Amino acid sequence: MLRALKPSPRILMGPGPSDVHPEVLRSLSIPLLGHLDPEFLEIMNDIMELLRQAFGTENLLTVPMSGTGSAGMETVFANLLEPGDHVLIGVNGLFGQRMADVARRCGGIVTEIHADWGDTLSEDELAAALEANPDIGMVAVVHAETSTGVQQPLKGISDLAHSHDCLFVVDAVTSLGGIPVDVDQHGVDACYSGTQKCLSAPPGLAPVSLGYRALERMDQRKTPVQSWYLDLSMIRSYWGSERSYHHTAPISMNYALREALRLLFEEGLDNVYQRHARLGKALQNGLEAMGLDLHVAEKHRLPQLTSVRIPKGIDDMTVRRELLAGFGIEIGGGLGELKGVIWRVGLMGHSCSPNNVMLFLSAMEQILRRQGMTIPEGVGPQAAWASL
Amino acid sequence: MLRALKPSPRILMGPGPSDVHPEVLRSLSIPLLGHLDPEFLEIMNDIMELLRQAFGTENLLTVPMSGTGSAGMETVFANLLEPGDHVLIGVNGLFGQRMADVARRCGGIVTEIHADWGDTLSEDELAAALEANPDIGMVAVVHAETSTGVQQPLKGISDLAHSHDCLFVVDAVTSLGGIPVDVDQHGVDACYSGTQKCLSAPPGLAPVSLGYRALERMDQRKTPVQSWYLDLSMIRSYWGSERSYHHTAPISMNYALREALRLLFEEGLDNVYQRHARLGKALQNGLEAMGLDLHVAEKHRLPQLTSVRIPKGIDDMTVRRELLAGFGIEIGGGLGELKGVIWRVGLMGHSCSPNNVMLFLSAMEQILRRQGMTIPEGVGPQAAWASL
Repeated sequence: MLRALKPSPRILMGPGPSDVHPEVLRSLSIPLLGHLDPEFLEIMNDIMELLRQAFGTENLLTVPMSGTGSAGMETVFANLLEPGDHVLIGVNGLFGQRMADVARRCGGIVTEIHADWGDTLSEDELAAALEANPDIGMVAVVHAETSTGVQQPLKGISDLAHSHDCLFVVDAVTSLGGIPVDVDQHGVDACYSGTQKCLSAPPGLAPVSLGYRALERMDQRKTPVQSWYLDLSMIRSYWGSERSYHHTAPISMNYALREALRLLFEEGLDNVYQRHARLGKALQNGLEAMGLDLHVAEKHRLPQLTSVRIPKGIDDMTVRRELLAGFGIEIGGGLGELKGVIWRVGLMGHSCSPNNVMLFLSAMEQILRRQGMTIPEGVGPQAAWASL
Repeated sequence: MLRALKPSPRILMGPGPSDVHPEVLRSLSIPLLGHLDPEFLEIMNDIMELLRQAFGTENLLTVPMSGTGSAGMETVFANLLEPGDHVLIGVNGLFGQRMADVARRCGGIVTEIHADWGDTLSEDELAAALEANPDIGMVAVVHAETSTGVQQPLKGISDLAHSHDCLFVVDAVTSLGGIPVDVDQHGVDACYSGTQKCLSAPPGLAPVSLGYRALERMDQRKTPVQSWYLDLSMIRSYWGSERSYHHTAPISMNYALREALRLLFEEGLDNVYQRHARLGKALQNGLEAMGLDLHVAEKHRLPQLTSVRIPKGIDDMTVRRELLAGFGIEIGGGLGELKGVIWRVGLMGHSCSPNNVMLFLSAMEQILRRQGMTIPEGVGPQAAWASL
């Protein structure tokens, strides 16, 4: 017979999930309403309204899809692409790669523009690709590359896309709630995110937001959306005034998202962004003071996700295992070509606290010193504290 | 500013979600592990093992997909069908219809065999369709039609499918944990379910189980699975010994599923089936004693979902609103062609208790009498109590 679940306590400082606020955890233990209960429909309205504010948009079709962030990605491509449609995708990390894979499975003809994993995309190269192929109807980039820690500037690419009559699609999985996404201001036509990063709800929902250009594209489809589960033409009738049953919404996860968003606005969006910026910078200063190299150039660094080069002679897994076993701290390893090359340290949402910065830097100092690195005592926490 | 979430208490006696056991609710409020944490990988092992027992199978590929029941349906069709494949689908309710829709979006060429909504499928008609089209490679039926309350016998259709070299696919969304599914004994090649029915976890996961014939079919594919998110060839590497990252599993929902399954086996599968059978019969006896007509012939009735014809002169919505407002009880209305014709009363999982049977029958008696129906005092609860 199994015993009741009792996992060890953790401090989640990886690339997501992040730690969930106690009030959000509490909301998950509330008994369920039905998915068509009038009170649940009100909760859905709250969620849509709060999501619009978080995305910085007036887009009516702003809803949480019933899957994790990658389901949000698939939602956008499956609804906006038809077989034979041309799409330009910026690939400077794993999630750009994934976009290209998903788009191809939707029948899209994909042009990839590459940049090094750790660099931003070149607007000139994107422009040249658009010039070269006038059939391209969509440009897609990742705002916050979770595999590298790079922040991609959006406005230039947005203008470029629109000047070529293209939809502009943005992956905001790791950016939403950590840095401003500003969908309307950036002219983003379709955007998707996840709940387990800077929103600090558990993984399981994928907020998406689609503007009028994207809706027009959906309305002009000649073929049905290949995914029934992610077909927005039906899902908008459930979240819209018709309230038509489509699938059974994940009630408890929507409770959690509603509460996570409520806490976001209780703190205030600007305060939240400032907290991420300040603590991200403190962490990065601390790591550099310890003699560690950061993988991304300073001007392109995300505050909520820092990639650290693994020093020569230090074993990736040993360090991560000691962090987990000794301190309960989870950080992430590298993905794809960055496996064994970087660590990924998250400061997302509820995990983004001064205490976590100080504790992590102290713990890393002890572990790396035991591994043979020479680090002056306490320089990491000192440098972080000085910039707090 | 929004206030903290505080939904009204409910007794969920509709077609799902059902009430969630307090211990499962408690598990949802446990702080999160990461999705690649060694302790979470153990929880994944527990879940797979318990799901195999619940499905009655030794299928290695038995995992919860990260979406609701309909995502489970899409998983099975997207992974097992390629464009141009022929499939035979039994349609005797909304979920049979949905299977046909999903299969077509996967490029399947669908033959539908229909039965009245409230009746079972005819094996003779299925056999004739298989004789008529030797290209058919898959037969799919719904085990427990959530839209009608019909239980479909499986063994005959399974034998038929296999004698024509077809995969046998079964929708077990509402059956798993309520009546025996017995995947191996019934020769089911691919099966999917949901967590929010008789397993009494919240909606948000879709357990699926695929046997060796289905895996062979997957391995022989010439085209990639059109859905990246639901591609089992990648998902089995995350749930298998490789533990390769695919998407971020919904941690809290998996906690809940693990605990719901643990409670299922603490009670014992046979005891659980007997509880559903006994209480379902008691409810049905009570309803008939009150003079109400049940929509499904006795031998085809599901114990966990009873469809009741709405009596002439009684208003569907008034009754459901009074149940909800006066007693906090949710039941379901009819779907599709049965809208306004039936109510659907669920006794699923934790909702399946003698107290709920007695309370519901008492409440219905008061409400229907106020609506003008003549019902002898207390006959419903009396008849139910007599058969408990």
